[in-house]
Amino acid sequence: MPYFDAASTAPPHPVARQALLAALDEGWADPARLHRSGRQARMLLDAARETVAEVLGARADEIVFTASGTQAVQLGILGALRGNRRRGAHLLHSAVEHSAVLHTAERWEADGGAATAVPVDRHGRVDAAEFAAALRPDTALAVLQSANHEVGTLQPVAETAALTGDVPLLVDAAQSAGRLPAPDGWSLLTASAHKWGGPAGVGVLAVRKGVRYVSPLPADDRENGRVPGYVNVPAIVAAAASLRAVRAEADAENARLRALVELIRHRVPQLIPSVEVVGHPELRLPHLVTFSCLYVDGEVLLGELDRAGFAVNSGSSCTSSTLTPSHVLAAMGVLTEGNVRVSLPPGTAAADVDRFLDVLPRVVAEIRAPLGLDLPAPEPGPRADALVLDTLGKRCPLPIIELAKRIPEVAPGGRIAVLSDDEAARHDIPAWCDMCGHTYAGEAPATEYGADHGTAYVVVKQ
Amino acid sequence: MPYFDAASTAPPHPVARQALLAALDEGWADPARLHRSGRQARMLLDAARETVAEVLGARADEIVFTASGTQAVQLGILGALRGNRRRGAHLLHSAVEHSAVLHTAERWEADGGAATAVPVDRHGRVDAAEFAAALRPDTALAVLQSANHEVGTLQPVAETAALTGDVPLLVDAAQSAGRLPAPDGWSLLTASAHKWGGPAGVGVLAVRKGVRYVSPLPADDRENGRVPGYVNVPAIVAAAASLRAVRAEADAENARLRALVELIRHRVPQLIPSVEVVGHPELRLPHLVTFSCLYVDGEVLLGELDRAGFAVNSGSSCTSSTLTPSHVLAAMGVLTEGNVRVSLPPGTAAADVDRFLDVLPRVVAEIRAPLGLDLPAPEPGPRADALVLDTLGKRCPLPIIELAKRIPEVAPGGRIAVLSDDEAARHDIPAWCDMCGHTYAGEAPATEYGADHGTAYVVVKQ
Repeated sequence: MPYFDAASTAPPHPVARQALLAALDEGWADPARLHRSGRQARMLLDAARETVAEVLGARADEIVFTASGTQAVQLGILGALRGNRRRGAHLLHSAVEHSAVLHTAERWEADGGAATAVPVDRHGRVDAAEFAAALRPDTALAVLQSANHEVGTLQPVAETAALTGDVPLLVDAAQSAGRLPAPDGWSLLTASAHKWGGPAGVGVLAVRKGVRYVSPLPADDRENGRVPGYVNVPAIVAAAASLRAVRAEADAENARLRALVELIRHRVPQLIPSVEVVGHPELRLPHLVTFSCLYVDGEVLLGELDRAGFAVNSGSSCTSSTLTPSHVLAAMGVLTEGNVRVSLPPGTAAADVDRFLDVLPRVVAEIRAPLGLDLPAPEPGPRADALVLDTLGKRCPLPIIELAKRIPEVAPGGRIAVLSDDEAARHDIPAWCDMCGHTYAGEAPATEYGADHGTAYVVVKQ
Repeated sequence: MPYFDAASTAPPHPVARQALLAALDEGWADPARLHRSGRQARMLLDAARETVAEVLGARADEIVFTASGTQAVQLGILGALRGNRRRGAHLLHSAVEHSAVLHTAERWEADGGAATAVPVDRHGRVDAAEFAAALRPDTALAVLQSANHEVGTLQPVAETAALTGDVPLLVDAAQSAGRLPAPDGWSLLTASAHKWGGPAGVGVLAVRKGVRYVSPLPADDRENGRVPGYVNVPAIVAAAASLRAVRAEADAENARLRALVELIRHRVPQLIPSVEVVGHPELRLPHLVTFSCLYVDGEVLLGELDRAGFAVNSGSSCTSSTLTPSHVLAAMGVLTEGNVRVSLPPGTAAADVDRFLDVLPRVVAEIRAPLGLDLPAPEPGPRADALVLDTLGKRCPLPIIELAKRIPEVAPGGRIAVLSDDEAARHDIPAWCDMCGHTYAGEAPATEYGADHGTAYVVVKQ
């Protein structure tokens, strides 16, 4: 079954598997112990640290191993903030960071700190000057990802680092480590082994020598006092070995995957009506492409693709357990519905991508069929100057579907107020207007249109 | 090479290795994903949770998996304290808990909470009534290990739980899980897979339904909101499979190891002069025995045993990176020097124990030889009524060695003031008196004996 969800986790690299097995035999003992078994584990750990440092462009004594990328992010942010308290308690980050960053920022704010999210453009990219302009005198830490995990857009890390002066910059390199060189300019760097084909259970936190750091957790001798708990030597050995292997293969594999992704980027809008490919067209990860299909429920689409034999993921509001829209797509101002992220692991066969492009249009058409939409836009019926469309109680993507069905009834220049109590509508209706060439005129309480709750989203037909 | 350090980490059980390999193939995907690979990982994770719950006597929805036993302890304690804030901010624990507990208590105190350590007897055992008497109206959590990690003494968990009323009790079962059934009475239970022969990277935190818990870490959906970060399914599957296997074999293996430990307990004092076997003689783990050799540096002894082919560990002050005495041995009031912990993994061969008993007396004698001690006690020389013995600047075990050498010079009933600035002397000199039948008469500032710093430990010769 073709697996196109490498951005969630990559299948273990063969080298990871071999190294894990060998290290289970040779490096299972406690590296803190003085006996022979312990010393052997220690040597393997030291060698793995050297390898990871070399690939990431760090010194070995700057690297500690965590239990996950999320733990690396949490410790990196909270440790750097604690270490830089004399600067202040302000945390600056982009609006499209991984939820691990956003949740850590929320916890920091709940504990009395401050945090600011810097907006991104419609491609999901931070502007370096805008980011630097958001620095405050009390900013103790800035956080910027190397590349976005949902849409693949590369962030201007080196340019931003050049403008942020001596404020420490944490770079979350989870999506790029192994595939691309680490960007210049980081003070702290985080990554996650299972994203590059290493085993689960290993994150990396690099802290540049001289960057102040105070552990947010109870004291512990392990990992330079930065990560409490027994050190998982076999998994770390496998993580290091696979990082080296993946990095060595990356240039050739990136070129191959980039061509496959380019094919998807170009063919999907030609094959399927009312689709938007999101993310930066050029400055992006080589292996990842994301698009949104209007009038489609993302979870239904994922389920149908799974039945058709393809594993993909979605940042759609409809697939999250909390039913909140993807914060990344929302920050970009693009549609959050019917979203599909295709992220190709190394070794993906071109034939599988061809088959995906064969299956996808059929699957989308089948999902849309019962909706009775006429795509592209049907002949308009009788026109009105204004319409109130009550979609209260209906969940994404129903409000957009009803809007698309009914807009032919309105004359050009006429207004439609879509009443909705689904949080996703706040992002999706303006995004739909952008895509379809209508004007979004803002929101008002739905009570102004006679409803007892909800919000009215006002669209001007062009 | 015989490995007698199972209490640090057990060699991976063959079942752990097999299950890890299988789960790397079948369960490497993200269990939070909706596609087939994700659902398969999810099923394996659910099954592992059921297994661990069954073996530990919990419900599956009470179990979450952490990255280590230390993380389980930290989250368990801080999460329960946060969840029980309305009770107060007092944490009660025994004085001989694992350092993960003590360091978490220190962090809790640094953050404004309160903590009390309940003393233990000379065997390292808590008295249930004494423990319960230390509860305060504002006690929010009590912590007690199932068995001590340095001396193997079993704690009266069920008896204590019966006396602590509705105050939640966290039981650190790291040393007993798999080998013994979980004790009754826990509100929270923690364990560590690599201690039972599972892989590194897996801890267990069980929280009884109804026990209040508020995560101390940034928000995350995984593991019931209690453990942030990507879930390590292959390692969890291996942990569960090996727990079941170890538990199934435990009764037979415990009996076999108990006999081997009994042999060590009886033979060591017969073979080596001036040795004290510590820990409870009956209420103890089946596979662990600890003894202290007077006049010996623990690190040197470990090194010599390693050269002779035996991997053991030590709670001796001399092996710790911080040079502070073992807090467990200190709390017990026994000697902290020349300490050896023998902890037998399942499958230990009787012949290896025989060989250890053959090698150990020779190794200890060789270390003691250059000291010029005459053991057992030499004929006394000329007697004095009082002696001041200046050992300032000398580290453990030199103060005790000098004391043993010089005490023959003092008449029975005479006093020796040992001047020392080594923190270990505070524990070791009274312990030495106990062992050798002299009376420890207390301490005084060394300035009273003409020194400019340090402490005088006063011994009355019997």
